[in-house]
Amino acid sequence: MTIPTLLQTGLATRLASRTQTLTSQTSGLAPSHLQANLIVLPQRYASDFRLLCQRNPVPCPLLAESSTPGSFTTLTSHLRRTPSSVPIPLASDIDLRHDAPKYLIYRDGKVANEVTDLASHWEADHVGFLIGCSYSFEDALASAGLPPRHTVQGRNVPMYRTKLPLCPAGVFTGGTYVVSMRPYRIEDVERVREVTRRYVATHGEPIAWGWDGARRLGIEDIRRPEWGDVSLTEDGKAEFAEGLEEGVVPVFWGCGVTPQEAVMRAGLDGTVMGHAPGHMIVLDVKDHEAFDEVSKV
Amino acid sequence: MTIPTLLQTGLATRLASRTQTLTSQTSGLAPSHLQANLIVLPQRYASDFRLLCQRNPVPCPLLAESSTPGSFTTLTSHLRRTPSSVPIPLASDIDLRHDAPKYLIYRDGKVANEVTDLASHWEADHVGFLIGCSYSFEDALASAGLPPRHTVQGRNVPMYRTKLPLCPAGVFTGGTYVVSMRPYRIEDVERVREVTRRYVATHGEPIAWGWDGARRLGIEDIRRPEWGDVSLTEDGKAEFAEGLEEGVVPVFWGCGVTPQEAVMRAGLDGTVMGHAPGHMIVLDVKDHEAFDEVSKV
Repeated sequence: MTIPTLLQTGLATRLASRTQTLTSQTSGLAPSHLQANLIVLPQRYASDFRLLCQRNPVPCPLLAESSTPGSFTTLTSHLRRTPSSVPIPLASDIDLRHDAPKYLIYRDGKVANEVTDLASHWEADHVGFLIGCSYSFEDALASAGLPPRHTVQGRNVPMYRTKLPLCPAGVFTGGTYVVSMRPYRIEDVERVREVTRRYVATHGEPIAWGWDGARRLGIEDIRRPEWGDVSLTEDGKAEFAEGLEEGVVPVFWGCGVTPQEAVMRAGLDGTVMGHAPGHMIVLDVKDHEAFDEVSKV
Repeated sequence: MTIPTLLQTGLATRLASRTQTLTSQTSGLAPSHLQANLIVLPQRYASDFRLLCQRNPVPCPLLAESSTPGSFTTLTSHLRRTPSSVPIPLASDIDLRHDAPKYLIYRDGKVANEVTDLASHWEADHVGFLIGCSYSFEDALASAGLPPRHTVQGRNVPMYRTKLPLCPAGVFTGGTYVVSMRPYRIEDVERVREVTRRYVATHGEPIAWGWDGARRLGIEDIRRPEWGDVSLTEDGKAEFAEGLEEGVVPVFWGCGVTPQEAVMRAGLDGTVMGHAPGHMIVLDVKDHEAFDEVSKV
């Protein structure tokens, strides 16, 4: 795959998606640029969805939304360095209908089909929301000598449903966290926590780690992620398939697929849309523009 | 008890606590005024604690903190009507060491003693944090014809430990939600949700309700709250003691005792202090000054 080496910026990645040159997952593309999950809802659900994000900022960190209902090219940013600072613009040339490599369409709370663009589905009362993605801190992990294994292997991150309930908000009841998983050596977990801590708008530090953590999340089979690729060991075997790899444990972060799950649980009427898990919209803003200095680690 | 009828304002309630005229719980006092939980930590834990609140805004809505380390009379407010508006001042004459009716002192992660003021314990590097309290919306519930039963009975709200994990933040790992419980008729739960929804900085709408909700929270015995008073039926019997009261279910909100539990789990060094559960610091700001219009219910 040669495309990724060319896709060093958010704009290049969005344009490649827009022209359908890029239809694969985006982990590792445009290093240090923020990546975003997309969820698109009928306007009548927008205020409840904002509240869902406000009450569950770790799995659902709201970065931006359509500046007016129906808008897919102008966004109101909610990303601030501090609560009192001005919002940071996210992207100068963006089209929410085309700029993810792949999308899912939901009808009556179920996945109806997978598409490469939303042009024929987007209606005048649709509101698009961008949610932070943990791909945004993978470059920082690599720079700290802790590259996520799936990026080294050019695979998608494994994602899991959990039994950890979201705080409900209006119509959004019964939802649970979705998490992404990256395996690390036990002795590296504290540094992994420190490196990712400052990325508050892209899930921040892990929510759980180790086998105790997996159990508390209610993950029944670590070898079977609901989305993304099965994690492989450095030898290319299925991770955790033959008992524990010595000294390696799963580390779990909040995941921006959570809102799509919440939408399914809520059984909303009408057409709901989102990116396909792992196939993100990449933004212009870079991590050092959005977050405080790197922790001293 | 005649005191409560005199205590119609935040200042009156704080002065009564300050002079030790008031040493009982504060539910129902100073109707429509915001009430706050207190947690006081050595400065070295302050940034991790802020992050804990940011990641867990439903149980830990951060209202304000000491404006400088050691300060107990001047606060920096974090309470805003909207993310971009200016912070709302909380109280003009406040002393965090004296203005709760009762306090707990923690040493080495355990409750060491209960005191009526913190004057002899507060050190130069202590930082005080005020966290929103669900007493703040009880007046709104009463105005909507849904008075919480414990306020009608002049009792403290029952509070429970749960198994619902907090999102960890720095040294704060292993914490779980604490919840307050108010019984309501099943058919009133949606209105109760609507009335409390706008109180985003004082726990907002419930996080769980019904017997399914209690089970998801891991509450083993609804008849035995860890803090506060056992809930009574309208006939004065122990609530839920003899099977279910027909049509009545428990409704659970995030509770500001959560940070004190988180501190105990984290086993922090040094002296940590908090209000005694139910014995809050009452503020000058009123609910209509802090939150959007009452939902149309």
